[in-house]
Amino acid sequence: MLSKTKALKAAVIGAGYMGSAITFPLSANNIEVNLWGTWLDDEIIEASLAGYHPKLKKALSPSIVPLYSKDLDKALSGIDMLFMAVTSEGFVKVFGMVLDNLAAPVYFFKLTKGLVSYKGSIVRATQAALDMLSQKFGPQDFAWATVGGPVRALDLAYEMPSVSMYGITNEKIKDMIPKLKTDYYRIVAKEDVIGVELSSTFKNIYAMAPGICDGLFREKYDGLYFNFTALLFAQAAKEISKIVERAGGDRDTVFDFAGVGDLYVTSAAGRNRKLGELVGRGIDPQKAFKDMSDDGEYGEGYMALELAAPWLETLDKKIIDELPLFKTLFKIFFNGGKPIDELKKLVLKI
Amino acid sequence: MLSKTKALKAAVIGAGYMGSAITFPLSANNIEVNLWGTWLDDEIIEASLAGYHPKLKKALSPSIVPLYSKDLDKALSGIDMLFMAVTSEGFVKVFGMVLDNLAAPVYFFKLTKGLVSYKGSIVRATQAALDMLSQKFGPQDFAWATVGGPVRALDLAYEMPSVSMYGITNEKIKDMIPKLKTDYYRIVAKEDVIGVELSSTFKNIYAMAPGICDGLFREKYDGLYFNFTALLFAQAAKEISKIVERAGGDRDTVFDFAGVGDLYVTSAAGRNRKLGELVGRGIDPQKAFKDMSDDGEYGEGYMALELAAPWLETLDKKIIDELPLFKTLFKIFFNGGKPIDELKKLVLKI
Repeated sequence: MLSKTKALKAAVIGAGYMGSAITFPLSANNIEVNLWGTWLDDEIIEASLAGYHPKLKKALSPSIVPLYSKDLDKALSGIDMLFMAVTSEGFVKVFGMVLDNLAAPVYFFKLTKGLVSYKGSIVRATQAALDMLSQKFGPQDFAWATVGGPVRALDLAYEMPSVSMYGITNEKIKDMIPKLKTDYYRIVAKEDVIGVELSSTFKNIYAMAPGICDGLFREKYDGLYFNFTALLFAQAAKEISKIVERAGGDRDTVFDFAGVGDLYVTSAAGRNRKLGELVGRGIDPQKAFKDMSDDGEYGEGYMALELAAPWLETLDKKIIDELPLFKTLFKIFFNGGKPIDELKKLVLKI
Repeated sequence: MLSKTKALKAAVIGAGYMGSAITFPLSANNIEVNLWGTWLDDEIIEASLAGYHPKLKKALSPSIVPLYSKDLDKALSGIDMLFMAVTSEGFVKVFGMVLDNLAAPVYFFKLTKGLVSYKGSIVRATQAALDMLSQKFGPQDFAWATVGGPVRALDLAYEMPSVSMYGITNEKIKDMIPKLKTDYYRIVAKEDVIGVELSSTFKNIYAMAPGICDGLFREKYDGLYFNFTALLFAQAAKEISKIVERAGGDRDTVFDFAGVGDLYVTSAAGRNRKLGELVGRGIDPQKAFKDMSDDGEYGEGYMALELAAPWLETLDKKIIDELPLFKTLFKIFFNGGKPIDELKKLVLKI
């Protein structure tokens, strides 16, 4: 699937923040890139063709080929590698469309984070994808990487130093990874898909907690609630490590770039932190999520939290009792818990 | 040493940020507190007596008794517990003065962080203190706690939720710990003095790294270097865990409140981060440290870094090669390394 005589070719599926940002290190490595937008991305593709990506607020590299949703077959033609970068909500549907248009397996990289509904269950997106791949091409070891952070798309697009941890299923994809690195985009590969994927998913959930503190305290107590957010940060790291371990992943991954690193950047910036802030300010969580979505700011942590509760139950009926911060967030976001009251109760449990 | 019929009595040694802040949970627990200032704290004591602590920018609790440096004997009279809260530089000298005035062992709590020069070696402050205690009172199991974070003094003084991890040497001090807790000041005790103490020490060093990024990038790249600081944060956590493990501590402590929690708060705020920022802006490290010290802002990380290099060598001659971020910081702070160049080189090592 990999020709040595011509340039490598990649399709990036999804032209939002992350899909668009990854095109920078790819084109820096002389990889030909088709950037395909879903039916929700038509305006982005149009603007990108005109020379300006509206989310990244800069032009893509001139070598990038932006493609409209109707051109999926064109986007996938002759590619060596595929980057899935749609939202977790759209993942199963879009990956199905991709497979309908793909003649043979390529190198797969999944930038999408989170849990997905698949065949009536809630599973990690990688589980769904590998099952779909087996159905299409027959069971085999696919060259697969589940990409983790800490990589905020904007920083990457501006070529600021970033490291990304790739959870890989086997050795097959390892040769490809050095071809994606640049001086500013570093990659650490580890055979721990579960650890990387769950760290990415749950950091989106837990990053809403420091956001809630911002909403609650920034106005009146600016500069005086660092301890509180640090408490929540460390508690989040501890809970994620518990989840990863219980799911069969390596808890050391949580204490590496993909875990505490990604939790750090997501807690400091981004849409999930912002969603938490709105909720901390007293806005109804569902309304806050919807308002942000309407503005094109998808707070993944919200959906991830909703799916994670039943998913955790399938993992271990009692695990949620060992995750007081998770429980607190669920109560606030889905059961009408008042942020300040729930956080105070949490503190007393420590 | 503990009377059940009367109120408990504590001496806090050092009237800077942390010593003064700890008086709030103590007085909330009806513990009588003598707050003793060193000869450097005379102005603080004077202002505190007049009703306003200049560092905390608020009055102490009315029950607190501020005492000048000349009144050390008075400060120690009839106490059940002692909190050491001077700088690491002053620790051995002041603890010696305390022992000269102390008739019998009490419950000891060490808020001072860092490594100290003691009998010609560089050791953890707890090692020095326990040796001094044995010399004074004869070898025995002292009731000792090495206090860790994540507790920024200001937040604590304003009674915002905080958690502190106490590294304890044995069971003896355990009964006392619940008597120090409040709804907002939570304590987690763990028999891992080494892990707690080294986490506290090294987070001060490593927190200078995100500070350097602020100095380098905030002006021109605001909002675009989160990935870089996240990379440094995770790398710091990994390196601290390596150090703790090699020193015989429990690396899990690094992935708990005292480790990543304290690193989080120290990276986000405080004097060490600020010192890093000045250096990132191009100010000579020694000058930046001195200027801050002259303003009463002691950047502990700087001294800790200087002491840590030889201390690490005594631990394991080759460990520094496994600590690329530590090496980078040392090069920047003590060997004339240019921050941007050294950080770029570090990124390439990942």
